Amino acid sequence: MSVDRKEFEKWHPKDIRSMMRKEAFKEHTMKLAENYVQANLAIVPKKFALEFMIFCQRNPRPCPILEVTEPGVSTLKYLSDNADLKTDLPQYRVFKDGECIDEPYNIKEYWRDDLVAFLLGCSATFDHVLDAAGIELRHFREGKVPSIYITNIRCKPAGPFRSPMVVSERPIKFKQLSQMIQITSRYPLMHGSPIHVGDPKMIGIKDMNKIDWGDQSDISEDEIPCFWACGITPQTAALNAKLDIMITHYPAKMFISDRRNVEFATIS
Amino acid sequence: MSVDRKEFEKWHPKDIRSMMRKEAFKEHTMKLAENYVQANLAIVPKKFALEFMIFCQRNPRPCPILEVTEPGVSTLKYLSDNADLKTDLPQYRVFKDGECIDEPYNIKEYWRDDLVAFLLGCSATFDHVLDAAGIELRHFREGKVPSIYITNIRCKPAGPFRSPMVVSERPIKFKQLSQMIQITSRYPLMHGSPIHVGDPKMIGIKDMNKIDWGDQSDISEDEIPCFWACGITPQTAALNAKLDIMITHYPAKMFISDRRNVEFATIS
Repeated sequence: MSVDRKEFEKWHPKDIRSMMRKEAFKEHTMKLAENYVQANLAIVPKKFALEFMIFCQRNPRPCPILEVTEPGVSTLKYLSDNADLKTDLPQYRVFKDGECIDEPYNIKEYWRDDLVAFLLGCSATFDHVLDAAGIELRHFREGKVPSIYITNIRCKPAGPFRSPMVVSERPIKFKQLSQMIQITSRYPLMHGSPIHVGDPKMIGIKDMNKIDWGDQSDISEDEIPCFWACGITPQTAALNAKLDIMITHYPAKMFISDRRNVEFATIS
Repeated sequence: MSVDRKEFEKWHPKDIRSMMRKEAFKEHTMKLAENYVQANLAIVPKKFALEFMIFCQRNPRPCPILEVTEPGVSTLKYLSDNADLKTDLPQYRVFKDGECIDEPYNIKEYWRDDLVAFLLGCSATFDHVLDAAGIELRHFREGKVPSIYITNIRCKPAGPFRSPMVVSERPIKFKQLSQMIQITSRYPLMHGSPIHVGDPKMIGIKDMNKIDWGDQSDISEDEIPCFWACGITPQTAALNAKLDIMITHYPAKMFISDRRNVEFATIS
Protein backbone atom coordinates (compact mmCIF):
# COMPACT_ATOMS: atom_id res chain seq x y z
CA MET A 1 0.00 0.00 0.00
CA SER A 2 1.42 3.36 -1.04
CA VAL A 3 -0.49 5.35 1.60
CA ASP A 4 0.66 5.72 5.23
CA ARG A 5 -1.42 3.59 7.65
CA LYS A 6 -2.06 6.52 10.01
CA GLU A 7 -3.54 8.43 7.08
CA PHE A 8 -5.45 5.38 5.83
CA GLU A 9 -7.11 4.98 9.24
CA LYS A 10 -8.97 8.24 8.57
CA TRP A 11 -10.39 7.25 5.19
CA HIS A 12 -14.13 6.72 4.70
CA PRO A 13 -15.27 3.07 4.90
CA LYS A 14 -16.27 3.10 1.21
CA ASP A 15 -12.72 4.06 0.21
CA ILE A 16 -11.16 1.61 2.65
CA ARG A 17 -13.31 -1.22 1.26
CA SER A 18 -12.40 -0.19 -2.28
CA MET A 19 -8.72 -0.76 -1.43
CA MET A 20 -9.55 -4.16 0.07
CA ARG A 21 -11.56 -5.08 -3.05
CA LYS A 22 -8.46 -4.40 -5.16
CA GLU A 23 -6.44 -6.47 -2.66
CA ALA A 24 -4.31 -3.40 -2.07
CA PHE A 25 -4.95 -3.60 1.70
CA LYS A 26 -4.67 -6.97 3.47
CA GLU A 27 -3.86 -5.93 7.04
CA HIS A 28 -5.88 -5.99 10.28
CA THR A 29 -8.66 -3.42 10.72
CA MET A 30 -7.98 -2.24 14.28
CA LYS A 31 -8.34 1.56 14.59
CA LEU A 32 -9.55 1.89 10.98
CA ALA A 33 -12.51 4.27 10.42
CA GLU A 34 -12.97 4.53 14.14
CA ASN A 35 -16.44 6.11 14.17
CA TYR A 36 -17.84 3.29 12.07
CA VAL A 37 -19.16 -0.12 13.09
CA GLN A 38 -16.94 -3.10 12.33
CA ALA A 39 -18.50 -6.56 12.12
CA ASN A 40 -17.51 -10.20 12.40
CA LEU A 41 -18.46 -12.38 9.43
CA ALA A 42 -19.85 -15.93 9.52
CA ILE A 43 -21.11 -17.52 6.31
CA VAL A 44 -22.97 -20.85 6.51
CA PRO A 45 -25.04 -22.93 4.06
CA LYS A 46 -28.78 -22.25 3.95
CA LYS A 47 -29.38 -25.78 5.24
CA PHE A 48 -27.96 -24.70 8.62
CA ALA A 49 -28.76 -20.97 8.53
CA LEU A 50 -32.03 -21.08 10.46
CA GLU A 51 -30.54 -23.09 13.31
CA PHE A 52 -27.43 -20.88 13.35
CA MET A 53 -29.69 -17.81 13.52
CA ILE A 54 -31.64 -19.41 16.38
CA PHE A 55 -28.30 -20.07 18.14
CA CYS A 56 -27.48 -16.36 17.79
CA GLN A 57 -30.94 -15.31 18.99
CA ARG A 58 -30.62 -17.56 22.06
CA ASN A 59 -27.17 -16.17 22.84
CA PRO A 60 -27.41 -12.47 21.98
CA ARG A 61 -24.52 -11.40 24.20
CA PRO A 62 -21.80 -13.26 22.25
CA CYS A 63 -23.76 -13.26 18.95
CA PRO A 64 -25.43 -9.88 18.37
CA ILE A 65 -26.85 -9.91 14.83
CA LEU A 66 -26.30 -6.74 12.80
CA GLU A 67 -27.41 -8.05 9.39
CA VAL A 68 -28.24 -11.35 7.70
CA THR A 69 -28.27 -11.72 3.92
CA GLU A 70 -30.88 -13.74 2.09
CA PRO A 71 -29.62 -17.05 0.61
CA GLY A 72 -27.19 -16.53 -2.27
CA VAL A 73 -26.96 -12.76 -1.75
CA SER A 74 -23.42 -11.54 -1.05
CA THR A 75 -24.23 -7.81 -1.07
CA LEU A 76 -25.48 -5.90 1.94
CA LYS A 77 -28.53 -3.64 2.26
CA TYR A 78 -28.32 -2.07 5.68
CA LEU A 79 -24.75 -1.91 6.98
CA SER A 80 -23.73 -0.54 3.56
CA ASP A 81 -25.33 0.08 0.18
CA ASN A 82 -22.30 -0.83 -1.92
CA ALA A 83 -20.50 -3.66 -0.19
CA ASP A 84 -19.88 -7.17 -1.56
CA LEU A 85 -18.88 -9.71 1.05
CA LYS A 86 -17.06 -11.80 -1.58
CA THR A 87 -14.32 -9.17 -1.89
CA ASP A 88 -14.65 -6.38 0.66
CA LEU A 89 -12.79 -7.79 3.66
CA PRO A 90 -8.98 -7.87 3.85
CA GLN A 91 -8.78 -11.65 4.28
CA TYR A 92 -10.97 -14.68 4.94
CA ARG A 93 -10.81 -18.18 6.36
CA VAL A 94 -12.57 -21.09 4.69
CA PHE A 95 -13.48 -24.16 6.76
CA LYS A 96 -14.53 -27.59 5.55
CA ASP A 97 -15.89 -30.08 8.10
CA GLY A 98 -14.42 -27.87 10.86
CA GLU A 99 -10.90 -27.71 9.37
CA CYS A 100 -9.39 -24.53 7.89
CA ILE A 101 -8.62 -25.29 4.24
CA ASP A 102 -7.78 -21.82 2.90
CA GLU A 103 -7.06 -18.22 3.94
CA PRO A 104 -7.85 -16.29 0.73
CA TYR A 105 -8.09 -12.54 0.05
CA ASN A 106 -11.43 -12.95 -1.67
CA ILE A 107 -14.02 -15.74 -1.68
CA LYS A 108 -15.26 -15.51 -5.28
CA GLU A 109 -14.36 -19.13 -5.99
CA TYR A 110 -16.07 -20.37 -2.83
CA TRP A 111 -19.33 -18.44 -3.17
CA ARG A 112 -22.45 -20.57 -3.69
CA ASP A 113 -26.12 -19.83 -4.29
CA ASP A 114 -27.08 -21.39 -0.97
CA LEU A 115 -24.79 -19.36 1.30
CA VAL A 116 -26.17 -17.05 3.99
CA ALA A 117 -23.94 -14.38 5.57
CA PHE A 118 -24.21 -13.23 9.17
CA LEU A 119 -22.65 -9.92 10.23
CA LEU A 120 -22.22 -9.92 13.99
CA GLY A 121 -21.35 -7.09 16.38
CA CYS A 122 -17.74 -6.85 17.34
CA SER A 123 -15.65 -5.40 20.11
CA ALA A 124 -13.32 -3.57 17.72
CA THR A 125 -15.99 -0.86 17.75
CA PHE A 126 -16.60 -1.21 21.43
CA ASP A 127 -13.13 -0.19 22.53
CA HIS A 128 -13.39 3.06 20.54
CA VAL A 129 -16.59 3.97 22.36
CA LEU A 130 -15.11 3.27 25.80
CA ASP A 131 -11.90 5.08 25.02
CA ALA A 132 -13.80 8.11 23.70
CA ALA A 133 -15.79 8.19 26.94
CA GLY A 134 -12.63 8.39 28.99
CA ILE A 135 -12.51 4.81 30.28
CA GLU A 136 -8.84 3.88 30.60
CA LEU A 137 -8.15 0.85 28.40
CA ARG A 138 -4.45 0.08 28.47
CA HIS A 139 -4.52 -2.62 25.79
CA PHE A 140 -6.29 -0.21 23.44
CA ARG A 141 -3.83 2.63 23.98
CA GLU A 142 -0.92 0.21 23.59
CA GLY A 143 -2.36 -1.17 20.33
CA LYS A 144 -2.89 -4.65 21.80
CA VAL A 145 -5.81 -7.10 21.57
CA PRO A 146 -7.72 -7.93 24.80
CA SER A 147 -6.97 -11.26 26.53
CA ILE A 148 -9.43 -13.91 25.41
CA TYR A 149 -10.49 -16.98 27.40
CA ILE A 150 -12.78 -19.99 27.03
CA THR A 151 -15.12 -20.11 30.06
CA ASN A 152 -17.29 -22.79 31.66
CA ILE A 153 -20.44 -20.79 30.82
CA ARG A 154 -22.50 -22.91 28.44
CA CYS A 155 -24.26 -21.23 25.56
CA LYS A 156 -27.83 -22.29 24.86
CA PRO A 157 -27.59 -24.85 22.03
CA ALA A 158 -29.63 -24.86 18.80
CA GLY A 159 -29.61 -27.71 16.31
CA PRO A 160 -25.99 -28.83 15.85
CA PHE A 161 -24.62 -25.57 17.29
CA ARG A 162 -23.15 -25.61 20.79
CA SER A 163 -20.18 -23.92 22.42
CA PRO A 164 -18.81 -22.71 25.72
CA MET A 165 -18.90 -18.92 25.92
CA VAL A 166 -15.66 -17.25 24.89
CA VAL A 167 -14.93 -13.94 26.63
CA SER A 168 -12.60 -10.99 26.22
CA GLU A 169 -11.14 -9.44 29.35
CA ARG A 170 -10.35 -5.81 30.06
CA PRO A 171 -9.01 -4.53 33.40
CA ILE A 172 -11.14 -1.54 34.49
CA LYS A 173 -10.36 0.99 37.24
CA PHE A 174 -12.65 0.40 40.22
CA LYS A 175 -13.56 4.08 40.17
CA GLN A 176 -14.72 3.82 36.53
CA LEU A 177 -16.70 0.57 36.89
CA SER A 178 -20.19 2.11 37.18
CA GLN A 179 -19.58 4.52 34.33
CA MET A 180 -18.21 1.74 32.11
CA ILE A 181 -21.31 -0.41 32.75
CA GLN A 182 -23.62 2.52 32.03
CA ILE A 183 -21.89 3.20 28.72
CA THR A 184 -21.58 -0.40 27.52
CA SER A 185 -25.23 -1.10 28.40
CA ARG A 186 -26.18 1.29 25.62
CA TYR A 187 -24.49 -0.94 23.02
CA PRO A 188 -26.18 -4.37 23.25
CA LEU A 189 -25.29 -5.04 19.59
CA MET A 190 -21.59 -4.70 20.39
CA HIS A 191 -21.71 -7.28 23.23
CA GLY A 192 -23.19 -4.80 25.76
CA SER A 193 -22.16 -4.76 29.41
CA PRO A 194 -19.79 -7.34 30.96
CA ILE A 195 -21.21 -10.82 31.54
CA HIS A 196 -18.94 -11.15 34.55
CA VAL A 197 -17.01 -8.77 36.81
CA GLY A 198 -14.37 -9.93 39.29
CA ASP A 199 -13.00 -13.36 40.22
CA PRO A 200 -12.17 -15.24 36.98
CA LYS A 201 -12.46 -18.62 38.75
CA MET A 202 -16.23 -18.12 39.01
CA ILE A 203 -16.50 -18.53 35.23
CA GLY A 204 -13.97 -21.35 34.97
CA ILE A 205 -10.81 -19.36 34.21
CA LYS A 206 -8.30 -21.00 36.52
CA ASP A 207 -5.19 -19.12 35.43
CA MET A 208 -5.38 -15.62 33.96
CA ASN A 209 -1.89 -16.12 32.53
CA LYS A 210 -3.11 -18.89 30.25
CA ILE A 211 -4.82 -16.95 27.50
CA ASP A 212 -6.60 -18.77 24.68
CA TRP A 213 -6.21 -15.90 22.19
CA GLY A 214 -5.18 -12.23 22.21
CA ASP A 215 -2.48 -10.52 24.23
CA GLN A 216 -1.66 -11.04 27.89
CA SER A 217 -2.96 -8.25 30.18
CA ASP A 218 -1.75 -7.28 33.64
CA ILE A 219 -4.21 -6.20 36.30
CA SER A 220 -3.17 -3.36 38.60
CA GLU A 221 -4.17 -3.01 42.26
CA ASP A 222 -6.71 -0.32 41.37
CA GLU A 223 -8.35 -2.41 38.64
CA ILE A 224 -10.92 -5.21 38.49
CA PRO A 225 -11.06 -7.74 35.65
CA CYS A 226 -14.20 -7.38 33.51
CA PHE A 227 -15.31 -10.05 31.04
CA TRP A 228 -17.38 -9.56 27.88
CA ALA A 229 -19.06 -12.16 25.70
CA CYS A 230 -16.87 -12.47 22.60
CA GLY A 231 -17.64 -12.90 18.90
CA ILE A 232 -15.35 -15.92 18.71
CA THR A 233 -18.18 -17.87 20.40
CA PRO A 234 -20.44 -18.27 17.33
CA GLN A 235 -17.45 -19.23 15.17
CA THR A 236 -16.55 -21.91 17.70
CA ALA A 237 -20.14 -23.17 17.69
CA ALA A 238 -20.20 -23.32 13.89
CA LEU A 239 -16.83 -25.07 13.75
CA ASN A 240 -17.95 -27.63 16.35
CA ALA A 241 -20.93 -28.38 14.08
CA LYS A 242 -18.45 -29.37 11.30
CA LEU A 243 -20.45 -27.83 8.44
CA ASP A 244 -19.43 -28.86 4.93
CA ILE A 245 -18.49 -25.21 4.36
CA MET A 246 -18.13 -22.17 6.58
CA ILE A 247 -16.40 -18.90 5.77
CA THR A 248 -15.35 -16.29 8.33
CA HIS A 249 -13.27 -13.13 8.38
CA TYR A 250 -9.59 -13.68 9.18
CA PRO A 251 -9.08 -12.85 12.89
CA ALA A 252 -8.82 -9.07 13.49
CA LYS A 253 -9.60 -8.37 9.81
CA MET A 254 -13.22 -7.36 10.08
CA PHE A 255 -15.87 -5.98 7.77
CA ILE A 256 -16.04 -2.16 8.00
CA SER A 257 -19.57 -0.84 7.59
CA ASP A 258 -20.95 2.57 6.62
CA ARG A 259 -22.98 2.82 9.82
CA ARG A 260 -21.70 4.98 12.65
CA ASN A 261 -21.23 3.61 16.17
CA VAL A 262 -23.59 6.20 17.63
CA GLU A 263 -26.48 4.90 15.50
CA PHE A 264 -26.35 1.69 17.52
CA ALA A 265 -26.68 3.45 20.86
CA THR A 266 -30.36 4.04 20.11
CA ILE A 267 -31.88 0.71 19.21
CA SER A 268 -34.83 0.74 21.58
CA MET B 1 -64.67 -21.32 34.48
CA SER B 2 -65.66 -21.75 38.12
CA VAL B 3 -63.10 -19.27 39.47
CA ASP B 4 -63.63 -15.50 39.55
CA ARG B 5 -61.60 -13.66 36.87
CA LYS B 6 -60.14 -11.17 39.36
CA GLU B 7 -58.83 -14.11 41.38
CA PHE B 8 -57.65 -15.93 38.24
CA GLU B 9 -55.58 -12.89 37.20
CA LYS B 10 -53.35 -13.54 40.22
CA TRP B 11 -52.61 -17.21 39.43
CA HIS B 12 -49.13 -18.35 38.44
CA PRO B 13 -48.57 -18.68 34.66
CA LYS B 14 -48.11 -22.47 34.97
CA ASP B 15 -51.56 -22.78 36.55
CA ILE B 16 -53.14 -20.37 34.09
CA ARG B 17 -51.69 -22.35 31.17
CA SER B 18 -52.94 -25.58 32.72
CA MET B 19 -56.49 -24.19 32.60
CA MET B 20 -56.00 -23.19 28.96
CA ARG B 21 -54.64 -26.66 28.16
CA LYS B 22 -57.86 -28.15 29.50
CA GLU B 23 -59.80 -25.56 27.46
CA ALA B 24 -61.31 -24.37 30.72
CA PHE B 25 -60.16 -20.78 29.98
CA LYS B 26 -60.73 -19.32 26.51
CA GLU B 27 -60.84 -15.57 27.22
CA HIS B 28 -58.41 -12.72 26.49
CA THR B 29 -55.22 -12.49 28.55
CA MET B 30 -55.17 -8.78 29.40
CA LYS B 31 -54.17 -8.18 33.04
CA LEU B 32 -53.46 -11.89 33.62
CA ALA B 33 -50.26 -12.69 35.58
CA GLU B 34 -49.23 -9.09 35.35
CA ASN B 35 -45.60 -9.48 36.38
CA TYR B 36 -44.98 -12.04 33.64
CA VAL B 37 -44.10 -11.57 29.99
CA GLN B 38 -46.85 -12.23 27.46
CA ALA B 39 -45.92 -13.02 23.88
CA ASN B 40 -47.42 -12.93 20.41
CA LEU B 41 -47.28 -16.21 18.49
CA ALA B 42 -46.49 -16.70 14.81
CA ILE B 43 -45.98 -20.21 13.43
CA VAL B 44 -44.68 -20.63 9.88
CA PRO B 45 -43.36 -23.57 7.82
CA LYS B 46 -39.61 -24.21 7.95
CA LYS B 47 -39.40 -23.39 4.24
CA PHE B 48 -40.13 -19.73 5.10
CA ALA B 49 -38.76 -19.61 8.66
CA LEU B 50 -35.29 -18.25 7.84
CA GLU B 51 -36.67 -15.40 5.75
CA PHE B 52 -39.34 -14.64 8.36
CA MET B 53 -36.61 -14.55 11.03
CA ILE B 54 -34.55 -12.21 8.83
CA PHE B 55 -37.66 -9.99 8.47
CA CYS B 56 -37.92 -9.85 12.27
CA GLN B 57 -34.19 -9.14 12.65
CA ARG B 58 -34.43 -6.27 10.13
CA ASN B 59 -37.46 -4.83 11.90
CA PRO B 60 -36.73 -5.35 15.60
CA ARG B 61 -39.06 -2.61 16.82
CA PRO B 62 -42.31 -4.26 15.61
CA CYS B 63 -40.86 -7.82 15.72
CA PRO B 64 -38.77 -8.34 18.87
CA ILE B 65 -37.92 -12.03 19.06
CA LEU B 66 -38.23 -13.65 22.50
CA GLU B 67 -37.84 -17.29 21.44
CA VAL B 68 -37.82 -19.42 18.28
CA THR B 69 -38.40 -23.16 18.36
CA GLU B 70 -36.46 -25.57 16.21
CA PRO B 71 -38.43 -27.16 13.32
CA GLY B 72 -41.15 -29.52 14.53
CA VAL B 73 -40.68 -28.63 18.21
CA SER B 74 -43.84 -27.23 19.84
CA THR B 75 -42.44 -27.03 23.38
CA LEU B 76 -40.47 -24.09 24.72
CA LYS B 77 -37.09 -24.06 26.45
CA TYR B 78 -36.55 -20.51 27.62
CA LEU B 79 -39.81 -18.66 28.14
CA SER B 80 -41.07 -21.70 30.04
CA ASP B 81 -39.93 -25.24 30.83
CA ASN B 82 -43.33 -26.90 30.64
CA ALA B 83 -45.30 -25.18 27.90
CA ASP B 84 -46.65 -26.74 24.71
CA LEU B 85 -47.67 -24.26 22.04
CA LYS B 86 -50.16 -26.74 20.57
CA THR B 87 -52.46 -26.36 23.59
CA ASP B 88 -51.31 -23.64 25.98
CA LEU B 89 -52.92 -20.52 24.51
CA PRO B 90 -56.63 -19.73 24.96
CA GLN B 91 -57.38 -19.63 21.23
CA TYR B 92 -55.63 -19.63 17.84
CA ARG B 93 -56.13 -18.53 14.26
CA VAL B 94 -55.12 -20.75 11.36
CA PHE B 95 -54.44 -19.16 7.97
CA LYS B 96 -54.16 -20.84 4.59
CA ASP B 97 -52.87 -18.79 1.65
CA GLY B 98 -53.53 -15.62 3.69
CA GLU B 99 -57.15 -16.51 4.55
CA CYS B 100 -58.33 -17.41 8.06
CA ILE B 101 -59.74 -20.94 7.86
CA ASP B 102 -60.19 -21.79 11.55
CA GLU B 103 -60.15 -20.30 15.08
CA PRO B 104 -59.54 -23.40 17.23
CA TYR B 105 -58.82 -23.75 20.96
CA ASN B 106 -55.86 -26.04 20.28
CA ILE B 107 -53.79 -26.74 17.18
CA LYS B 108 -53.06 -30.43 17.64
CA GLU B 109 -54.63 -31.33 14.30
CA TYR B 110 -52.68 -28.61 12.44
CA TRP B 111 -49.25 -29.30 13.92
CA ARG B 112 -46.62 -30.52 11.43
CA ASP B 113 -43.02 -31.65 11.70
CA ASP B 114 -41.85 -28.69 9.62
CA LEU B 115 -43.42 -25.90 11.68
CA VAL B 116 -41.29 -23.25 13.44
CA ALA B 117 -42.82 -21.09 16.18
CA PHE B 118 -41.84 -17.48 16.86
CA LEU B 119 -42.66 -15.89 20.20
CA LEU B 120 -42.56 -12.12 19.83
CA GLY B 121 -42.57 -9.35 22.42
CA CYS B 122 -45.94 -7.81 23.09
CA SER B 123 -47.34 -4.60 24.47
CA ALA B 124 -49.67 -6.40 26.89
CA THR B 125 -46.63 -6.55 29.15
CA PHE B 126 -45.58 -3.06 28.28
CA ASP B 127 -48.64 -1.34 29.67
CA HIS B 128 -48.15 -3.02 33.05
CA VAL B 129 -44.63 -1.66 33.28
CA LEU B 130 -45.68 1.89 32.40
CA ASP B 131 -48.63 1.80 34.74
CA ALA B 132 -46.50 0.48 37.60
CA ALA B 133 -44.06 3.35 37.00
CA GLY B 134 -46.82 5.89 37.42
CA ILE B 135 -47.33 6.82 33.77
CA GLU B 136 -51.03 7.65 33.36
CA LEU B 137 -52.49 5.31 30.73
CA ARG B 138 -56.22 5.91 30.51
CA HIS B 139 -56.98 3.01 28.17
CA PHE B 140 -55.20 0.63 30.54
CA ARG B 141 -57.05 1.82 33.63
CA GLU B 142 -60.34 1.66 31.72
CA GLY B 143 -59.61 -1.90 30.55
CA LYS B 144 -59.46 -0.87 26.88
CA VAL B 145 -57.04 -1.80 24.07
CA PRO B 146 -54.85 1.00 22.60
CA SER B 147 -55.88 2.49 19.24
CA ILE B 148 -54.05 0.74 16.41
CA TYR B 149 -53.24 2.25 13.00
CA ILE B 150 -51.54 1.24 9.77
CA THR B 151 -48.83 3.82 8.95
CA ASN B 152 -46.94 4.80 5.82
CA ILE B 153 -43.63 3.66 7.40
CA ARG B 154 -42.30 0.79 5.30
CA CYS B 155 -40.71 -2.16 7.04
CA LYS B 156 -37.52 -3.53 5.54
CA PRO B 157 -38.56 -6.51 3.41
CA ALA B 158 -37.04 -10.01 3.49
CA GLY B 159 -37.88 -12.72 0.98
CA PRO B 160 -41.67 -12.71 0.47
CA PHE B 161 -42.26 -10.76 3.70
CA ARG B 162 -43.20 -7.08 3.45
CA SER B 163 -45.59 -4.84 5.36
CA PRO B 164 -46.27 -1.27 6.36
CA MET B 165 -45.54 -0.74 10.05
CA VAL B 166 -48.57 -1.06 12.28
CA VAL B 167 -48.51 1.09 15.44
CA SER B 168 -50.36 1.33 18.71
CA GLU B 169 -51.11 4.78 20.08
CA ARG B 170 -51.19 5.95 23.68
CA PRO B 171 -51.83 9.56 24.75
CA ILE B 172 -49.12 10.58 27.23
CA LYS B 173 -49.06 13.63 29.49
CA PHE B 174 -46.50 16.16 28.21
CA LYS B 175 -45.03 16.31 31.71
CA GLN B 176 -44.45 12.52 31.72
CA LEU B 177 -42.99 12.25 28.20
CA SER B 178 -39.30 12.13 29.17
CA GLN B 179 -39.90 9.65 31.97
CA MET B 180 -42.00 7.44 29.70
CA ILE B 181 -39.24 7.37 27.06
CA GLN B 182 -36.61 6.57 29.68
CA ILE B 183 -38.67 3.65 30.99
CA THR B 184 -39.71 2.19 27.64
CA SER B 185 -36.14 2.40 26.32
CA ARG B 186 -35.24 -0.26 28.87
CA TYR B 187 -37.62 -2.76 27.22
CA PRO B 188 -36.48 -3.13 23.60
CA LEU B 189 -37.97 -6.64 23.50
CA MET B 190 -41.42 -5.22 24.26
CA HIS B 191 -41.31 -2.70 21.39
CA GLY B 192 -39.08 -0.23 23.28
CA SER B 193 -39.58 3.52 23.05
CA PRO B 194 -42.09 5.19 20.68
CA ILE B 195 -41.17 5.19 16.99
CA HIS B 196 -43.02 8.50 16.64
CA VAL B 197 -44.20 11.23 19.00
CA GLY B 198 -46.62 13.97 17.96
CA ASP B 199 -48.39 14.78 14.67
CA PRO B 200 -49.95 11.56 13.33
CA LYS B 201 -49.95 12.92 9.76
CA MET B 202 -46.16 12.63 9.67
CA ILE B 203 -46.51 8.83 9.67
CA GLY B 204 -49.46 8.71 7.30
CA ILE B 205 -52.33 8.66 9.81
CA LYS B 206 -54.74 11.20 8.30
CA ASP B 207 -57.62 10.78 10.72
CA MET B 208 -57.07 9.63 14.30
CA ASN B 209 -60.76 8.74 14.50
CA LYS B 210 -60.34 6.05 11.87
CA ILE B 211 -58.75 3.25 13.85
CA ASP B 212 -57.73 0.01 12.15
CA TRP B 213 -57.97 -2.11 15.31
CA GLY B 214 -58.39 -1.59 19.06
CA ASP B 215 -60.45 1.01 20.88
CA GLN B 216 -60.83 4.70 20.06
CA SER B 217 -58.80 7.01 22.32
CA ASP B 218 -59.33 10.69 23.07
CA ILE B 219 -56.38 13.02 23.43
CA SER B 220 -56.61 15.72 26.10
CA GLU B 221 -55.04 19.18 25.88
CA ASP B 222 -52.26 18.15 28.26
CA GLU B 223 -51.38 15.01 26.29
CA ILE B 224 -49.35 14.20 23.18
CA PRO B 225 -50.02 11.14 21.02
CA CYS B 226 -47.19 8.57 21.15
CA PHE B 227 -46.88 5.72 18.67
CA TRP B 228 -45.23 2.35 19.21
CA ALA B 229 -44.32 -0.32 16.69
CA CYS B 230 -46.95 -3.05 17.06
CA GLY B 231 -46.79 -6.85 16.97
CA ILE B 232 -49.55 -6.97 14.35
CA THR B 233 -46.86 -5.94 11.83
CA PRO B 234 -45.16 -9.37 11.47
CA GLN B 235 -48.56 -11.10 11.22
CA THR B 236 -49.50 -8.72 8.42
CA ALA B 237 -46.21 -9.41 6.66
CA ALA B 238 -46.73 -13.17 6.94
CA LEU B 239 -50.32 -12.94 5.74
CA ASN B 240 -49.27 -10.80 2.77
CA ALA B 241 -46.80 -13.58 1.85
CA LYS B 242 -49.77 -15.99 1.57
CA LEU B 243 -48.00 -18.99 3.14
CA ASP B 244 -49.66 -22.38 2.70
CA ILE B 245 -50.07 -22.43 6.48
CA MET B 246 -49.60 -19.89 9.25
CA ILE B 247 -50.88 -20.10 12.82
CA THR B 248 -51.12 -17.17 15.24
CA HIS B 249 -52.62 -16.48 18.63
CA TYR B 250 -56.19 -15.14 18.53
CA PRO B 251 -56.03 -11.34 18.99
CA ALA B 252 -55.58 -10.34 22.65
CA LYS B 253 -55.24 -14.02 23.68
CA MET B 254 -51.50 -14.25 24.11
CA PHE B 255 -49.01 -16.82 25.35
CA ILE B 256 -48.21 -16.26 29.03
CA SER B 257 -44.61 -17.11 29.87
CA ASP B 258 -42.85 -17.97 33.14
CA ARG B 259 -40.36 -15.13 32.70
CA ARG B 260 -40.85 -11.92 34.66
CA ASN B 261 -41.04 -8.52 32.97
CA VAL B 262 -38.11 -7.22 34.99
CA GLU B 263 -35.80 -9.91 33.55
CA PHE B 264 -36.16 -8.20 30.19
CA ALA B 265 -35.06 -4.82 31.48
CA THR B 266 -31.50 -6.10 31.62
CA ILE B 267 -30.69 -7.55 28.23
CA SER B 268 -27.45 -5.73 27.53
